[in-house]
Amino acid sequence: MTGRRASARTAGAAASGRTPGRRPGGPDTRGEILRAARESFAGKGFSGTSIRAVAREAGVDAALVHHYFDSKDELFIESMALPIDPRQVAARVLTGPREELGHRIVTTFLGVWESPDGQQRMKAILRSVVSSDEVARLMREGITQMIIAPVAETLGVPDAKLRVSLVATQLIGIAMTRYLIELDPVASTPVAELVDRIAPVTQHYLTN
Amino acid sequence: MTGRRASARTAGAAASGRTPGRRPGGPDTRGEILRAARESFAGKGFSGTSIRAVAREAGVDAALVHHYFDSKDELFIESMALPIDPRQVAARVLTGPREELGHRIVTTFLGVWESPDGQQRMKAILRSVVSSDEVARLMREGITQMIIAPVAETLGVPDAKLRVSLVATQLIGIAMTRYLIELDPVASTPVAELVDRIAPVTQHYLTN
Repeated sequence: MTGRRASARTAGAAASGRTPGRRPGGPDTRGEILRAARESFAGKGFSGTSIRAVAREAGVDAALVHHYFDSKDELFIESMALPIDPRQVAARVLTGPREELGHRIVTTFLGVWESPDGQQRMKAILRSVVSSDEVARLMREGITQMIIAPVAETLGVPDAKLRVSLVATQLIGIAMTRYLIELDPVASTPVAELVDRIAPVTQHYLTN
Repeated sequence: MTGRRASARTAGAAASGRTPGRRPGGPDTRGEILRAARESFAGKGFSGTSIRAVAREAGVDAALVHHYFDSKDELFIESMALPIDPRQVAARVLTGPREELGHRIVTTFLGVWESPDGQQRMKAILRSVVSSDEVARLMREGITQMIIAPVAETLGVPDAKLRVSLVATQLIGIAMTRYLIELDPVASTPVAELVDRIAPVTQHYLTN
């Protein structure tokens, strides 16, 4: 096992012109670990990812991964660093006419998913949420505190949290169907038309 | 490894009053394998499930699982046998006033998810779709042929398939949010209120 790993690493290092063997913790090492972790979480989910495999993929020793990140949880949170800060998104979405709130939410959400980097990160999150109860709990808390609570407060109606979480169901559903299941014609419809179809529905959930 | 498995099986057999040791392929063996497979797919998804582990859980030899099911794919399809036949569901949903179509779809869908057996099977499907591209492809074809096509044909408008697949996004999203992520307040809202909130939206997608 160790021999196989070592030769894989050596081959990779040779191909990229690096000196073979374990690299020391340089300035870009943390970034390379995060990149490898992101790829693994995206492809294999939370449960299918191990620190050892991430270390191998990044070409470093597992101890070095532990030096930078206390646990797989921490590695996940750091590597998942959302393409945009959810609190900034909430603030941006809440600025503007209330009757266009649904439109702003859908445009912002699909905007993240339509960028290749954003899509890779969001897919990793979704895959990990589904395969691990622990990650589901993490995401549940994150969504509630960073998005549902502030948007609900702005709505200022008694059932605001239910309204906002119904919007979340529609957004999660479109992400699952378009980007993960790739069900047609939702997967192949131009994003502008999707926004036109979905925005009135999210607006309805929020203010009707 | 083999020793641990054997004693676990013996303990299980003793606890249930069965004769210890490998059981022969009796009339209920296939059913017990399917039950064990369903549990594993629901908890660990498609990738996290192995024929060996299913055999262990069912208290039989892995060769016996292979005797009944050619592959993990086949075991999945058989064990996932939907709680209800999708074609019958489509037919039932399509019978009745068109302006209540959205309501009938949401009631039927949530009805399946609210039954414990249905929920376990649907969770297994959702988890497996997310963790395996192969299962995602199977589901995509199944949903398209058995549900989207007949419902779209009944609608009889040019963009019918897009309309029906948008309904699918909302249904998949409510399932993910309520039963897998368990995000509140969607997770704790009585099902009748959820139907009242979501039915107008699915109706809007279909006929507005």
